[in-house]
Amino acid sequence: MAAKVLINGYGTIGKRVADAVDAQPDMEVYGVVKTSPDYLARLAVTEKGFDLYVPEDRVDAFEDAGIEVAGTVEEAVEAVDVVVDCTPEGIGARNKENLYEPAGVKAIYQGGEEADVADVSFVAQCNYEEALGVDHVRCVSCNTTALCRTLGAVEEEFGVEEAYVTIVRRAADPHQVGKGPINAIVPNPVTVPSHHGPDVKTVLGDLNITTAAVKVPTTLMHMHVVRVVLGDDGVSSDDVVELFENTRRVWVVPHGEGLGSTAELIEMARDLGRPRYDLYEIMVWEESINVEDGVLYYMQAVHQEADVVPENVDAVRAVLELEEDAEKSMDKTDEALGVLERPPFLG
Amino acid sequence: MAAKVLINGYGTIGKRVADAVDAQPDMEVYGVVKTSPDYLARLAVTEKGFDLYVPEDRVDAFEDAGIEVAGTVEEAVEAVDVVVDCTPEGIGARNKENLYEPAGVKAIYQGGEEADVADVSFVAQCNYEEALGVDHVRCVSCNTTALCRTLGAVEEEFGVEEAYVTIVRRAADPHQVGKGPINAIVPNPVTVPSHHGPDVKTVLGDLNITTAAVKVPTTLMHMHVVRVVLGDDGVSSDDVVELFENTRRVWVVPHGEGLGSTAELIEMARDLGRPRYDLYEIMVWEESINVEDGVLYYMQAVHQEADVVPENVDAVRAVLELEEDAEKSMDKTDEALGVLERPPFLG
Repeated sequence: MAAKVLINGYGTIGKRVADAVDAQPDMEVYGVVKTSPDYLARLAVTEKGFDLYVPEDRVDAFEDAGIEVAGTVEEAVEAVDVVVDCTPEGIGARNKENLYEPAGVKAIYQGGEEADVADVSFVAQCNYEEALGVDHVRCVSCNTTALCRTLGAVEEEFGVEEAYVTIVRRAADPHQVGKGPINAIVPNPVTVPSHHGPDVKTVLGDLNITTAAVKVPTTLMHMHVVRVVLGDDGVSSDDVVELFENTRRVWVVPHGEGLGSTAELIEMARDLGRPRYDLYEIMVWEESINVEDGVLYYMQAVHQEADVVPENVDAVRAVLELEEDAEKSMDKTDEALGVLERPPFLG
Repeated sequence: MAAKVLINGYGTIGKRVADAVDAQPDMEVYGVVKTSPDYLARLAVTEKGFDLYVPEDRVDAFEDAGIEVAGTVEEAVEAVDVVVDCTPEGIGARNKENLYEPAGVKAIYQGGEEADVADVSFVAQCNYEEALGVDHVRCVSCNTTALCRTLGAVEEEFGVEEAYVTIVRRAADPHQVGKGPINAIVPNPVTVPSHHGPDVKTVLGDLNITTAAVKVPTTLMHMHVVRVVLGDDGVSSDDVVELFENTRRVWVVPHGEGLGSTAELIEMARDLGRPRYDLYEIMVWEESINVEDGVLYYMQAVHQEADVVPENVDAVRAVLELEEDAEKSMDKTDEALGVLERPPFLG
């Protein structure tokens, strides 16, 4: 019988996790939780066919708007095997205390929560096994997930003496018209190092990494400009290209074939027919990969709306022990979502 | 037997027309024509399965890049029933003279061409019948198409004394990273009235319309701010809402349900699962529709990449006389593309 999953929060991540869970053979969407009776709530019901659960004090608002409600979130948490919490930063921790622990239900949180909300901070290809059977797991942020995928591979293959990453962040998601900046570069945070490095260490414990971050007026993707002092001084640029070509959920993309920016990567995702133009994979520009005197440089782009989506699916499988083996879980997830190994059109 | 269609030019419009033709029951993509051997050429072959035709002098460039070419464009125009020309502004007229007329093949052009390239300037719901069996038809621009859909309906239902439209244009398509402005509003053209009014008259001959246009730093959609002196002073706002709700390829959308901007309309298209987030329909904000003292005001958003796509399909059907009746052609087109009457999630 398929595992019953409740998605609590139906925003940027929640609506994608719902579709992703819905696509898996071994789990089903019990329902989605929303607090605002807007077009997206209607669409979840009429187009996606999801059951809608709302907080008890919001039932009237939905009924007034003529949107069908299946029940309350308080009821739903009692009925499911696991909750994927996709609520805004900080709400997940409150939900753990007020909803999930009282109901004795397992839960998966997002990277906006503090690491101590969960027993394990999770990236499937790095530490799937640690999450097996655990009650509370945190899928780390889009940036941390991306860094863990590529730096984790470099660490494992060549060793990392130290890594330094400049994170150039998108300022808002595409629909967030109230957020800025529209014409400035914002040190964010202005304190260096930024919190991103320690967050990577919640997954890759002993990696020596420091980070700094700025925010720029774009909505499409983040970019990471990476410098790594390698543990092995016999490594060539080609070795790293080959490593990334063989790393899961990472693509090596040719800047020179019309893919010279985040905008063009998103256009590629549209051309590829990806739902919501989602790029689950981390995009490393081939031309940026360079090793000089034992120091590796590369640039990677991260679709902040999408890269954590397969991770949430794998986390469900891990906490419910639907699959003991990380690779087998990722195989299932990736097949259902259309996550690809580097496809032939990249040349 | 399905009609053979060649799509000449595989950019913003061409790649969409190819997918749209491919989805129809009564026509097939004979091939697509491209001049640059980039990721999109590869993707057309490996993911879409289209045959690729290139100008004779570009064959070597594609072969050097390892991209399979089915033949030359010069050969392809001899083999098809109709060409949809989606080349950049001005190239269509040259192709007519150098390629299509010598081959005796029918052709459909885009709105970037001068009106005199074709016998008919075309919007399916306005003048389908005029294009029946004609050799050269021009699908008008995205802006003109949008204005013809809504103003044509107003003209037919209530009469139009005069229309005045301020067009707030997107500056570039999403992938065009080389284009500006990034932080300015550009009168474009600075001369008033702009050329858009006369272009509307190529379809709706006797409509009294003037237009002015500015360009702003966005890539998502155009916006039209419309003022119409009605021919009938007994019309209410509700009458116009009802008219637009019953007008093909037009949606009345609620600003108040999380759809308060072009960005949020595009997010809706992503949530709806539209390929490439394409909105074929014109979006009129319900709250903007207002009639005061016989003067109608409304605002509409136009997805510049998408609204002309169904028009090109209908134009193929008209010139080849695959269907005599406009409504029946539009029914076929819309069903195959998933063009919707106003869907239930809009409330």
